[in-house]
Amino acid sequence: MGGDHGLSVTVPASLSFLKQEAAAELVLVGPQELIEAELRKHKAENHPRIKVKNASEIVKMDDPIEVALRRKKDSSMRVAIQLVKDGEVHACVSAGNTGALMAISRYLLKTMPGVDRPAICAILPNQKNGPTYVLDLGANVDCEAEHLHQFALMGSALFANIEGNPHPKIGLLNVGTEAIKGNDVVKKAGDLLHIEHENGTLNFYGNAEGNDIFEGTCDVIVCDGFVGNVTLKSIEGLGRFVRNVLVTEFRSSLLNGLGALLAGKALKSIRQRLNPSRFNGACMLGLRGLVFKSHGSADAYAYECAIRRAHEAVRRDVLLRISTTMAELLQKSKEHHAVEKTNTENGIQEQETV
Amino acid sequence: MGGDHGLSVTVPASLSFLKQEAAAELVLVGPQELIEAELRKHKAENHPRIKVKNASEIVKMDDPIEVALRRKKDSSMRVAIQLVKDGEVHACVSAGNTGALMAISRYLLKTMPGVDRPAICAILPNQKNGPTYVLDLGANVDCEAEHLHQFALMGSALFANIEGNPHPKIGLLNVGTEAIKGNDVVKKAGDLLHIEHENGTLNFYGNAEGNDIFEGTCDVIVCDGFVGNVTLKSIEGLGRFVRNVLVTEFRSSLLNGLGALLAGKALKSIRQRLNPSRFNGACMLGLRGLVFKSHGSADAYAYECAIRRAHEAVRRDVLLRISTTMAELLQKSKEHHAVEKTNTENGIQEQETV
Repeated sequence: MGGDHGLSVTVPASLSFLKQEAAAELVLVGPQELIEAELRKHKAENHPRIKVKNASEIVKMDDPIEVALRRKKDSSMRVAIQLVKDGEVHACVSAGNTGALMAISRYLLKTMPGVDRPAICAILPNQKNGPTYVLDLGANVDCEAEHLHQFALMGSALFANIEGNPHPKIGLLNVGTEAIKGNDVVKKAGDLLHIEHENGTLNFYGNAEGNDIFEGTCDVIVCDGFVGNVTLKSIEGLGRFVRNVLVTEFRSSLLNGLGALLAGKALKSIRQRLNPSRFNGACMLGLRGLVFKSHGSADAYAYECAIRRAHEAVRRDVLLRISTTMAELLQKSKEHHAVEKTNTENGIQEQETV
Repeated sequence: MGGDHGLSVTVPASLSFLKQEAAAELVLVGPQELIEAELRKHKAENHPRIKVKNASEIVKMDDPIEVALRRKKDSSMRVAIQLVKDGEVHACVSAGNTGALMAISRYLLKTMPGVDRPAICAILPNQKNGPTYVLDLGANVDCEAEHLHQFALMGSALFANIEGNPHPKIGLLNVGTEAIKGNDVVKKAGDLLHIEHENGTLNFYGNAEGNDIFEGTCDVIVCDGFVGNVTLKSIEGLGRFVRNVLVTEFRSSLLNGLGALLAGKALKSIRQRLNPSRFNGACMLGLRGLVFKSHGSADAYAYECAIRRAHEAVRRDVLLRISTTMAELLQKSKEHHAVEKTNTENGIQEQETV
């Protein structure tokens, strides 16, 4: 029901997705009559792989989290996440209010062991033709160093399991590459990640800068949700700006129009490589269940990409794999800290003995 | 001397600038023999409008601020800023270490009345074919609400005086448009700016999001230096990525090559509109002197743009104008707060009397 367009986007996206994925099934959650009416428009009221689950309320894009969480107990968002919790579906996709989606997910599904705060992880394209995972993108506007540390562990586990690279390079988003750069939280997070690198838990690259996101310097880039959110939206804004400039300039004269026609293949390929819709569908990481967030302004193609991403995560059993990897990483990290502590205590003892 | 390329960029840029501006004069600061050797390469050792001012040391890009400030007292950076202070030049342009440039400027020039911390203000293009001023871009990685408040006043004064718009729209960079969004510092800054709007000191738009930078929703966008720096570098990174994709795809086949040839005018215009070099030269705002920061990686064209920007600021007497506007804004803001305070005190008195 969510996002800027609601059912007029989510229903066509669902139908298109099911056409591509012959084994997949979808449960559409929201006011039953509305969904059924929309399905009828597409002559799909009897689709064998669509179930409709009724929910009487809708979380609005500007509802405060408290309202979404405490007052609207029969919202489509909450009912959908409950289905994940009850094991009736494998994953939930929503284009709705991000804060509400995160709060309800956290409340119903709970976080994985070792995770204080879940994070939103998006995938961006880079110049090396690979993906750059960036988290957090808005779930946590105030972060401590320990949270950034956990985001690094989660991001590493996600990348390793989806991309099949057991030692992804982790960068810490900062205002410069030198270790002395940044505010206190980031500097402290850098120290924590450096320790993880030393003990072999993480492949920590060090500080990354904004441009590293697109240069593909790192596989995973970690930041707090305020910085991540502003950065992502700035990038999207520039993307739209560039697209508009391209379209305007190519249409500005007939000759250019002819040139553009001849350059058609290149333009199509450019559009394909730079299309932000392809990358729609951010993962809410650190929960005991799979929840994907589509952009609120997504069109049907972009929303279908988000469903596809959720489907891919289910197919690859990402949740179990991340839990396992996270447990291993945490165990390794703890063992190391225990050894360090023992060494320090022994050091003190020795000193005292001396 | 600074930046990634030093004299091989700054000298040609200076010569090209002087060719365009027949009345301008430049003082090049650094080790005299090195500068003279570079000038000889360009057959410009006797240029009538170039003076060379010797400085024996160079601040390196990775020098800690303390080293630049306390140990290298005869650095080209420090000598150049001293020239500004002594009134021997109207402005200083540097591509060197940003932290050092800011620290030395602040130490030698001091801040304007009412300004606790200077800020770096860059100008970005937007979809409305106008400029968006964004500050701070890295001078202050930890900010309080009061600093963001001052950035807004300074940005407003700069925009008003350069663009000739007395009531520029000021946006506060945040993760959402609603007033409840953001971390504590930003929420408090929003309250302060709202008061300035109510009393007519500022034209406060409210919260802006990353995409608003390019949509031209606001004339000036205010953020802390950490967010601003990461955002700017991300934008630059995406810009390079897009440019590379365009070039690669247009070169990828002969037909596309022909198409690109025909589309040449459009491509040239696109390059022109999106060329980040055009916007090189950020203003260090809030100092009692004009200092401009070029990108460290600037080529000769980009560095010339930074010199041009400084020249334009001198020509428009921006420093005096901003000081005057800032004094007026501060006076207005203070008067309002005094009235508010009296009202509150009277309110309390009345209550007590009752």
